[in-house]
Amino acid sequence: MALGKDYGLQDCALARTLELVGERWTLLIVRDAFYGVRRYSDFLAHLDVPRAVLSARLQALVDAGVFVKHRYRQSPPRAEYVLTERGADLWPIIRSMATWGETHVQNGVPCRLYRHVDCGGTVDPSGSCAVCAALVGPRDTVVAPGPGANLLLRDDAVTRAMRTPHRLLEPLLP
Amino acid sequence: MALGKDYGLQDCALARTLELVGERWTLLIVRDAFYGVRRYSDFLAHLDVPRAVLSARLQALVDAGVFVKHRYRQSPPRAEYVLTERGADLWPIIRSMATWGETHVQNGVPCRLYRHVDCGGTVDPSGSCAVCAALVGPRDTVVAPGPGANLLLRDDAVTRAMRTPHRLLEPLLP
Repeated sequence: MALGKDYGLQDCALARTLELVGERWTLLIVRDAFYGVRRYSDFLAHLDVPRAVLSARLQALVDAGVFVKHRYRQSPPRAEYVLTERGADLWPIIRSMATWGETHVQNGVPCRLYRHVDCGGTVDPSGSCAVCAALVGPRDTVVAPGPGANLLLRDDAVTRAMRTPHRLLEPLLP
Repeated sequence: MALGKDYGLQDCALARTLELVGERWTLLIVRDAFYGVRRYSDFLAHLDVPRAVLSARLQALVDAGVFVKHRYRQSPPRAEYVLTERGADLWPIIRSMATWGETHVQNGVPCRLYRHVDCGGTVDPSGSCAVCAALVGPRDTVVAPGPGANLLLRDDAVTRAMRTPHRLLEPLLP
């Protein structure tokens, strides 16, 4: 059944969020942006999403103010998509969703680990550093493969780059 | 474009969560369950969702172990849907999504307020009580209308009951 993407009669901030980031694939695109993916071709290679869907989702995220689009080459035209501050505020959503899947689908075995850049402490799901107790945002977080990572599932450039620890939001690929 | 609901080639706990609760309407149904909605007819009246969609989503949530279905009347058969512990662990997702919408779509004006049952303190988005600093789960949280609530948008039984403060997860309607 085809369903629209609005929830106009729901007086609820959750509904407003879902209207902007609740469509299929959208939060996986945002997740990749936190990992440092910026180019259309890299999102495409990592997500195996149909081109029409990826283009529509990227444009919707630009329209929602979650991504800003930068033209980095004129001919042929190439753009990159970078999270805005508004977009970076989606991190607690990404992290809480990943935590639930890790706990309840993957038997508590994480496929990614998050560490505090400053002290190396583990960043817990609420964003606190286990060593220095600081509240750690994504810009001060390093992501690395966890014990549940399936490193052989795929072999695109994004997956290969994610095999080594990487600071969130910094460009992942040259 | 019709898209399946799995993300089989994404090695990621976020993808596992989205496979179970990422379909349209699902998280709004879960939100209502936190408010204490349990019966099919009450979900239907509050969400204006097509019956076929509501039935499919409720069954998928039972299959995912998020809801348990209790038969409370035999003839005619009537059931209620109650969050399991696994389902109650979705609260940080609901809260983080609502917080983002409140901050970035509703100019920081909340349509719901959350308070700690024990001391009346405001529960912040990370789940901490502003008064006693306890980490407060949904069972110890009272929801009440906030300054951004549009109390006239609709007039179903769930909306009317939500106009007075109510403890999360306790049955909302008699």
